[in-house]
Amino acid sequence: MSGEALRDLAGLLAALARGPAQASPPTATLPPAASVPVGVSGRHVHLSQADLEALFGPGARLTPLRELSQPGQFAAEERVTLVGPKGVIQHVRVLGPVRARTQVEVLRGDTYRLGIKPCVRLSGHIDGTPGVTLVGPAGAVTLTEGVIVAARHLHLSPEEAVGLGLRDGQVVSLLCEGERPGRLDGVVVRASGRGALDCHIDTEEANAFGLVNGSRLRLVV
Amino acid sequence: MSGEALRDLAGLLAALARGPAQASPPTATLPPAASVPVGVSGRHVHLSQADLEALFGPGARLTPLRELSQPGQFAAEERVTLVGPKGVIQHVRVLGPVRARTQVEVLRGDTYRLGIKPCVRLSGHIDGTPGVTLVGPAGAVTLTEGVIVAARHLHLSPEEAVGLGLRDGQVVSLLCEGERPGRLDGVVVRASGRGALDCHIDTEEANAFGLVNGSRLRLVV
Repeated sequence: MSGEALRDLAGLLAALARGPAQASPPTATLPPAASVPVGVSGRHVHLSQADLEALFGPGARLTPLRELSQPGQFAAEERVTLVGPKGVIQHVRVLGPVRARTQVEVLRGDTYRLGIKPCVRLSGHIDGTPGVTLVGPAGAVTLTEGVIVAARHLHLSPEEAVGLGLRDGQVVSLLCEGERPGRLDGVVVRASGRGALDCHIDTEEANAFGLVNGSRLRLVV
Repeated sequence: MSGEALRDLAGLLAALARGPAQASPPTATLPPAASVPVGVSGRHVHLSQADLEALFGPGARLTPLRELSQPGQFAAEERVTLVGPKGVIQHVRVLGPVRARTQVEVLRGDTYRLGIKPCVRLSGHIDGTPGVTLVGPAGAVTLTEGVIVAARHLHLSPEEAVGLGLRDGQVVSLLCEGERPGRLDGVVVRASGRGALDCHIDTEEANAFGLVNGSRLRLVV
């Protein structure tokens, strides 16, 4: 049997195996309805209560400015300055509420400006990451670790995960079909009771694909 | 025959049809050797001789600072300031040699800072793009058009194009398998006698994929 005939037969058998409902998709793409909204994160800081007070004074509380897509999370009015061995970045937004550990999320380009190593990590995974100095109106804090470039992730509730056939920790891809088309691989699914459907990417990732807050990407599993 | 058995048979037949040399690739990926080096472009300006003289004085010539990947192209010592309706960007590098028309290539994020519309275009295709004001030590030039966000493209010589089975104007994809994996689609092939193999992306695209000058991407056609 020739190679061409084998290919034809293989294609036919593969289509039969998939069944009529899935006969056409070229990849394992979910139905068109399975798209997710994008939330674009700029550089920002999460503070512990102790570091908040060191930077903004004893007894300091964060002042909510606007709500974020994840329930309970907010952008605060407070801003800090980041000082690295090579450079400085001013007016970096603090997000609330306060956390157990201070964490600084910067863009990859920021790490070059600051003069620190870029470490791509999921939020909360800061062991062994670089530090930086934070300066506020009442004082400064020098972190020995805590600066990450955020890894792409997809927030959702457990119910939304079931609806999309996804599980917590799964790695998926997202397809972008706009002016700067492409595919984001390595997107980590984070299903939690406080989650709401939103794919978090940073400003550089958004700009590379021509995306803005609320843009939609197609899920590819 | 069960669906699973059909799938197994289909997979086996497909592998037989492809032959041993191509038994594993999941997509139409070229052999591993078909990778291309990345050249990362920051924001920069190409000037006409008239605009060079308006900004740097009568009779001004560009002073080469270092050669670029494309033969004859160079980064110049000269730098200008971009002034848009919303903001200013200083110290923007001029590239040489001079061109027939002035063209400003910025990052998508820069267009927000400047307050102009982001227009993704190939170099030289500036009709209908926004303008900006350029300021140099000897004067200013206000462009009515000429500001683009550069579209991803792959430079090569006609001989390299033949070697890779590509043709001028073809649109290809590039696969990134590093820390921030993904695929860049819509990469335009630009084969020319003065071309040398190099995939030009901008700083935001590079950072989104964790790429630096000289990183290699796999061609997917």
